[in-house]
Amino acid sequence: MPFIVFEGLDGSGKSTLMQSLSQELKSQNLPVTTTREPGGTPLGEQIRNLLLKNGKDAPTAWTELFLYEACRRQNVDHVIRPSLEKGHWVLCDRFWASTSAFQSGGRNLDEDKVLQINQWATDGLNPDLWVYMDLPLEEAQKRWENRTSFHPLDRFEMEKLSFHEKVRDYYNKMTKSQKYGPWLVLNATQSTETLVRELIQELKKRAWL
Amino acid sequence: MPFIVFEGLDGSGKSTLMQSLSQELKSQNLPVTTTREPGGTPLGEQIRNLLLKNGKDAPTAWTELFLYEACRRQNVDHVIRPSLEKGHWVLCDRFWASTSAFQSGGRNLDEDKVLQINQWATDGLNPDLWVYMDLPLEEAQKRWENRTSFHPLDRFEMEKLSFHEKVRDYYNKMTKSQKYGPWLVLNATQSTETLVRELIQELKKRAWL
Repeated sequence: MPFIVFEGLDGSGKSTLMQSLSQELKSQNLPVTTTREPGGTPLGEQIRNLLLKNGKDAPTAWTELFLYEACRRQNVDHVIRPSLEKGHWVLCDRFWASTSAFQSGGRNLDEDKVLQINQWATDGLNPDLWVYMDLPLEEAQKRWENRTSFHPLDRFEMEKLSFHEKVRDYYNKMTKSQKYGPWLVLNATQSTETLVRELIQELKKRAWL
Repeated sequence: MPFIVFEGLDGSGKSTLMQSLSQELKSQNLPVTTTREPGGTPLGEQIRNLLLKNGKDAPTAWTELFLYEACRRQNVDHVIRPSLEKGHWVLCDRFWASTSAFQSGGRNLDEDKVLQINQWATDGLNPDLWVYMDLPLEEAQKRWENRTSFHPLDRFEMEKLSFHEKVRDYYNKMTKSQKYGPWLVLNATQSTETLVRELIQELKKRAWL
């Protein structure tokens, strides 16, 4: 069964689209496992809490990278691979492309080192399809601002605009290069209904549905 | 100032020797910083707690590796490098050789990958001297058994004898190869007084004292 990853800036609607697809698959009686990064396992959720810390003991850029990879490997070993082996569809909110976009693109860590560590962390497991929720930065920012009414901005949302521009540029680079796998780029300003329809169309085109 | 790392099996007396050297240096009014792995920083101590977890959500071998590297990088960035830059002696209880011994030697993770990740995690920083506390496995086991009266065996102490044999063999290999840096091998069955004397003799030989 396919392994599909949802990528994009925070607020781009990845999680909503993933949940909508999951419901659609379940309504067709297809077995589906959803997971997320960072997190996805009880240990991973604890690591996620360490990653979002602010202040003077916040992880440095490389520490952060290793914490993401730790989460990822636990998720691959305990959730993603076993679910694929059971014949489930696996839908994951972020995977190694996020690490390349945020840590290489945003934080300027060496691109090749990050790609190498990503592959060691996934044990060479790559998704059958990356779904990229393409959203203009101005629109993403508006969505973050609306969110602050109910939760404080996290460590990434607090980064300067130039950081998020670099992240977005890196995503654009990945979606345009065959090197990083097959990408479906969706215009994330559209309604959830439209996005689900476009995604399901792609899955049918690939004869997965 | 020198950066000295103490290595060996659990119970080999690393920490005791490190503290004794630290006191000796302080008594000579020399600035000294002591730290440890995993741990050494507030974030690292939280990661340390995740590493010692047992049960079905215990980290897998590669997850464990990435958690150690996360601790290490935070310690290098926040404690080891800044202390060396201030002109301190830095004494560290375990460093990357432990990861090679336990994760490559003990858990059979690919040797070259682990060495490569170790170097990325330390940003190429290597100690001026590794001090290896050489202890027969039988003696180490006796010490662990005595310890259980006051604290439960942790995840590593619970490993089978063959695991610890492989760890010890890997340490022996590292101490005999120039590739891994300068090693001082001490017979850890000796008294602390003798061990401190032998260590200080080595530091004088190197003109550090």
